Amino acid sequence: MTLMKKADFPVANVRHFFEPGPVMLISSALANERDIMTLGWHTVLEFSPSLIGCMISVGNHSHRLIKESRECVINLPTSGLLDTVVAIGNCSGEEIDKFAEFSLTPQPASNVSAPMIAECHASFECRLFEDALVDSLNFFVFEVVKAHVAPSPKKPETVHYCGDGEFMLSGKHVSRRSLFRPEML
Amino acid sequence: MTLMKKADFPVANVRHFFEPGPVMLISSALANERDIMTLGWHTVLEFSPSLIGCMISVGNHSHRLIKESRECVINLPTSGLLDTVVAIGNCSGEEIDKFAEFSLTPQPASNVSAPMIAECHASFECRLFEDALVDSLNFFVFEVVKAHVAPSPKKPETVHYCGDGEFMLSGKHVSRRSLFRPEML
Repeated sequence: MTLMKKADFPVANVRHFFEPGPVMLISSALANERDIMTLGWHTVLEFSPSLIGCMISVGNHSHRLIKESRECVINLPTSGLLDTVVAIGNCSGEEIDKFAEFSLTPQPASNVSAPMIAECHASFECRLFEDALVDSLNFFVFEVVKAHVAPSPKKPETVHYCGDGEFMLSGKHVSRRSLFRPEML
Repeated sequence: MTLMKKADFPVANVRHFFEPGPVMLISSALANERDIMTLGWHTVLEFSPSLIGCMISVGNHSHRLIKESRECVINLPTSGLLDTVVAIGNCSGEEIDKFAEFSLTPQPASNVSAPMIAECHASFECRLFEDALVDSLNFFVFEVVKAHVAPSPKKPETVHYCGDGEFMLSGKHVSRRSLFRPEML
């Protein structure tokens, strides 16, 4: 698998990657433990600060690592990683080290201790911003404190989960920029 | 524009429509007012009860209607409605009635007073479930109390916002069902 060379990216613009709705991979670390989980339930919440809300079920090994460390990295995998994404979502980090099991390369992040996944197109370093709904709904609000994005391809093919084992791959892009009021762009 | 004939759909399965990340249209009503807004910032939160989280900016006319009525309908538009979706997101319901302005057909919902949009592929009747993050983050958690979905097409072409006036249209579907553990489906 290819290691993606990433460059700094403005955190206020991460909607470009989250809002279309792709499956993400969250990496986390706590003391000597590390884990990766698939994440399909996320939403942008604000541009600045750059906020992302994620539902991370308490049944996931990652839940405890993220809740206690208050940090994670959200990584964007592309379609070449689809089988790995599925495999990661169908095993538990309590039993295996998913980096080793799936030959994924951990890379040190700049501002958090959770590792980035080198094979992913983008990696977003996150700190827990709001935990009011963590205990009741497993809903974490993170602030993206640093973003790393591969400069190419410009429109990576992403994978979007539909349930029942089925995925939608991202399709063609169309612009309607001319129909927008400038302040809405 | 075509009026979609919809059938009842199990509320616990609405992830099929929300999780891939399409732009939605929220319709709402309060006394003699009604409105429609575009919604790109949403996430599934739970199967049962069927919970959806939505960021609805306080700057939208719909925010007050939904906060006070504690109800809305989330409608799924398909790509034939893209220009209408953009137009709805670039004007304010304080100045116009968007149903009339865009020739959209309001249909009575079963369990909420907000109208459904007949031209959309699916309509999800919602009641406010949790408002703890409404004042601080404009984040509403809704319970889908009834779902209406057109039986065909089976894989409607949806629109996904990327920012900067650009949309991604849903692409091909692929199954990895055979790689899932049965309890993960």
